[in-house]
Amino acid sequence: MAKKEKAFVKDITPMEVDFPQWYTDVIKKTDMVDYSPVKGFMVIKPYGYAIWENIQSYMDKRFKDTGHKNMYFPLLIPESLLKKEAEHVEGFAPEVAWVTHGGNEKLAERLCVRPTSETIICSMYSKWLNSYRDLPYLYNQWCSVVRWEKSTRPFLRTSEFLWQEGHTLHETEEEAQAETIQMLNIYKETAEELLAIPVITGRKSEKEKFAGAQATYTMEALMHDGKALQAGTSHNLGQHFTKAFDITFLGRNGEMQHPYHTSWGVSTRLIGGIIMVHGDNRGLVLPPRVAPTQVIIIPIAQHKEGVLDKAYELKKALGEDIRIEIDDSENNSPGWKFNEWEMKGVPIRIEIGPRDIENNQVMIFRRDTLEKQAVPMEGLKETVTKLLDDIHYNMLEKARRYRDEKTYYVENFEDFKKKQEEKPGFAKAMWCGDRACEERIKAETGATIRCIPFEQEDLGNKCHFCGKEAKHMVYVARAY
Amino acid sequence: MAKKEKAFVKDITPMEVDFPQWYTDVIKKTDMVDYSPVKGFMVIKPYGYAIWENIQSYMDKRFKDTGHKNMYFPLLIPESLLKKEAEHVEGFAPEVAWVTHGGNEKLAERLCVRPTSETIICSMYSKWLNSYRDLPYLYNQWCSVVRWEKSTRPFLRTSEFLWQEGHTLHETEEEAQAETIQMLNIYKETAEELLAIPVITGRKSEKEKFAGAQATYTMEALMHDGKALQAGTSHNLGQHFTKAFDITFLGRNGEMQHPYHTSWGVSTRLIGGIIMVHGDNRGLVLPPRVAPTQVIIIPIAQHKEGVLDKAYELKKALGEDIRIEIDDSENNSPGWKFNEWEMKGVPIRIEIGPRDIENNQVMIFRRDTLEKQAVPMEGLKETVTKLLDDIHYNMLEKARRYRDEKTYYVENFEDFKKKQEEKPGFAKAMWCGDRACEERIKAETGATIRCIPFEQEDLGNKCHFCGKEAKHMVYVARAY
Repeated sequence: MAKKEKAFVKDITPMEVDFPQWYTDVIKKTDMVDYSPVKGFMVIKPYGYAIWENIQSYMDKRFKDTGHKNMYFPLLIPESLLKKEAEHVEGFAPEVAWVTHGGNEKLAERLCVRPTSETIICSMYSKWLNSYRDLPYLYNQWCSVVRWEKSTRPFLRTSEFLWQEGHTLHETEEEAQAETIQMLNIYKETAEELLAIPVITGRKSEKEKFAGAQATYTMEALMHDGKALQAGTSHNLGQHFTKAFDITFLGRNGEMQHPYHTSWGVSTRLIGGIIMVHGDNRGLVLPPRVAPTQVIIIPIAQHKEGVLDKAYELKKALGEDIRIEIDDSENNSPGWKFNEWEMKGVPIRIEIGPRDIENNQVMIFRRDTLEKQAVPMEGLKETVTKLLDDIHYNMLEKARRYRDEKTYYVENFEDFKKKQEEKPGFAKAMWCGDRACEERIKAETGATIRCIPFEQEDLGNKCHFCGKEAKHMVYVARAY
Repeated sequence: MAKKEKAFVKDITPMEVDFPQWYTDVIKKTDMVDYSPVKGFMVIKPYGYAIWENIQSYMDKRFKDTGHKNMYFPLLIPESLLKKEAEHVEGFAPEVAWVTHGGNEKLAERLCVRPTSETIICSMYSKWLNSYRDLPYLYNQWCSVVRWEKSTRPFLRTSEFLWQEGHTLHETEEEAQAETIQMLNIYKETAEELLAIPVITGRKSEKEKFAGAQATYTMEALMHDGKALQAGTSHNLGQHFTKAFDITFLGRNGEMQHPYHTSWGVSTRLIGGIIMVHGDNRGLVLPPRVAPTQVIIIPIAQHKEGVLDKAYELKKALGEDIRIEIDDSENNSPGWKFNEWEMKGVPIRIEIGPRDIENNQVMIFRRDTLEKQAVPMEGLKETVTKLLDDIHYNMLEKARRYRDEKTYYVENFEDFKKKQEEKPGFAKAMWCGDRACEERIKAETGATIRCIPFEQEDLGNKCHFCGKEAKHMVYVARAY
């Protein structure tokens, strides 16, 4: 790969100037999403939705390969059910939408639009479960949920979003813990192998865990602006809900007991992560494995004899296993098309014109490195297939380098504050484990403890924030 | 195929005794669905949901092959939007669920949970559409909708159901009409080629059309009890909504104009249709192309050496393109398993025991005809693949014969009433086209005009119900 092309962008605010505006420009100009008439609710347009479909298709297969099946539970949950688990209702009640009328009648009991489905699912599990022979319960649901958010941003935080929520029951605590970690690992592999997003995995602090969980595990990614994104969570719910909902089974020992419980979810938020990890000032840079269009063919001098024919021939030859399109619109010049499809983040552009045909070659431009070079027509399918893989791993490595550059150690609280201002990113530090200390970090800096990573580093025996005895090494950052 | 097996069923009410109870027994005992804590809302369990996934996967491909893309629009619709198209709000307002509070705050405007999405989608289309060059708009959405029903039955009529809704815009009336019919034809092919359900297609009367449509087209199937099921509809919406929502585009003639509009949908109701068209007194009979499990292998004397190994070897050999499972549970006898999987409607059962292995054969039982015969191990994959196809077409033909037997001509209104009592089914008759006559039919018999079929038969020039001049030949039946 050789010649670099000159950057040219219209109408996208550079990310160095105003990162939130850059994000808004990108999602709007690439036609991924739009604001709806209901505040905080988004419309996911075809170019955004197709990414979600690719994520779904990959994850659904992973879930099924690990023995999970899909179900569908009701959208509406009676208030009395939501209230059964004390911490859970405290966490979610302030942000649910309430249905009070059905048709022309006032309901005897309010129903909330599901913010998550633990309660309704547990009420059914308590009806179904009989014996240890029925376990494990390994179920998942793809649906939308509603959480009444005050301040929203498409994909990252919206009052409605699409997600999957897994809900499993197990005979023993060990099995539940193993499931919780298995699903977190599948999330991590999805992030890295599908989305080319490197993630840190670990446990949430007590303060940051899911409402009603015994322990929440998370994967955290770092965005271009140095803010963290919680990209997926997996909860070991212990027996909190199974006791509250009186879910019991006849154990091997002949006694009735409560099963152990997990839940885990990722959402359309991942799309926001893709944009903010890989995007640049030209627009989107899509990881090849989820890109709705992996290859765009742009005919040059398309009115000349043979050009369009050759372009369609190429599409046919490549199209069986590769998501490929031709832009043969007559109203726009090739230059305009180059910009348009670069903005849309298509991983590979193939240019083909009369001279290329003569030379039995095409020009290939890769979006991740902005490099362009001539490639022989012969063996093109192999070249493109391999290049898509190369682009994936290059993007993953680039994102990892970028994250590592923005990850640093701190001396003490003052040093942390200074570095967060100068160079936002992941701070690695020791922490005492106290909630008061954690709350002070947030109050004074806006940053939160993102996770207690599985890969602990020994950075001393004192909490870097309060000086007390340290319990864990943690990642701290401002977050979406 | 030879020897017929003796029928043996426990706990399923025979359909001749009580058809609604038969239906309820079947869906409960086969674990397809359960009632939720919210009246009228169902939980779709894995065995039911897997059928929906197979329907989705087939239809989604058909939609995409005809140029449609998926989007996602908000779940909640402001009351003011719902009210913009007069007939539409009149039709839907009485059956919507209203969200009045978000978090702890009362909303300034009530939001309804979408009963269908024409209004919110049109509000977005009016923002997006500019020029004839943008047309056609070919979009679809997979989601759940809520309609507050007084009397419900799982799959057939529930307050929440899963569906797809297509929403398209076109430059001309002809194109919109062509789209409406194209999608109805895809529905018909889905019914026949995927679900083995024969359907009558035609137009709905003015009284029965969708609230806000110019014309509604439908496919109608006949259930075992002689009642009709509206299994999918496709609406030509003309300019009703595009005018109400002020959707305009710059036409080829340089003038602003309103596009033509269609919408079309099928739902989880199709699963109810599968049950009631194909089921028998042993339980489900699933069409092979949507059956979650197409082949169940039951080892005989599974503790004997080599039996389980051979069963797993078979599964592996067949499993790549066939949805296949082994029931090797130790707690149940082969006889119990036979009954269980027959009840669950699995199209093919393979029995394999020591004697079969010795003879290099397996026993194959087909659910549709209840026939069993020995089949050589050699070439088993081809045998099974072909048999699955045979079963599909046999089920389709059987359902067609059954429907035709329950389809009849009538002499006059009295004759119609008599025949509807004696032999419920599709009555073919001439109709005057008057709403008053249609309402009288419904008031006196509970039957409705299901459709004005595309395939008109000339049955005279007098309305069979009121004696006035006839306009159309129609199908009349009681319906779900």
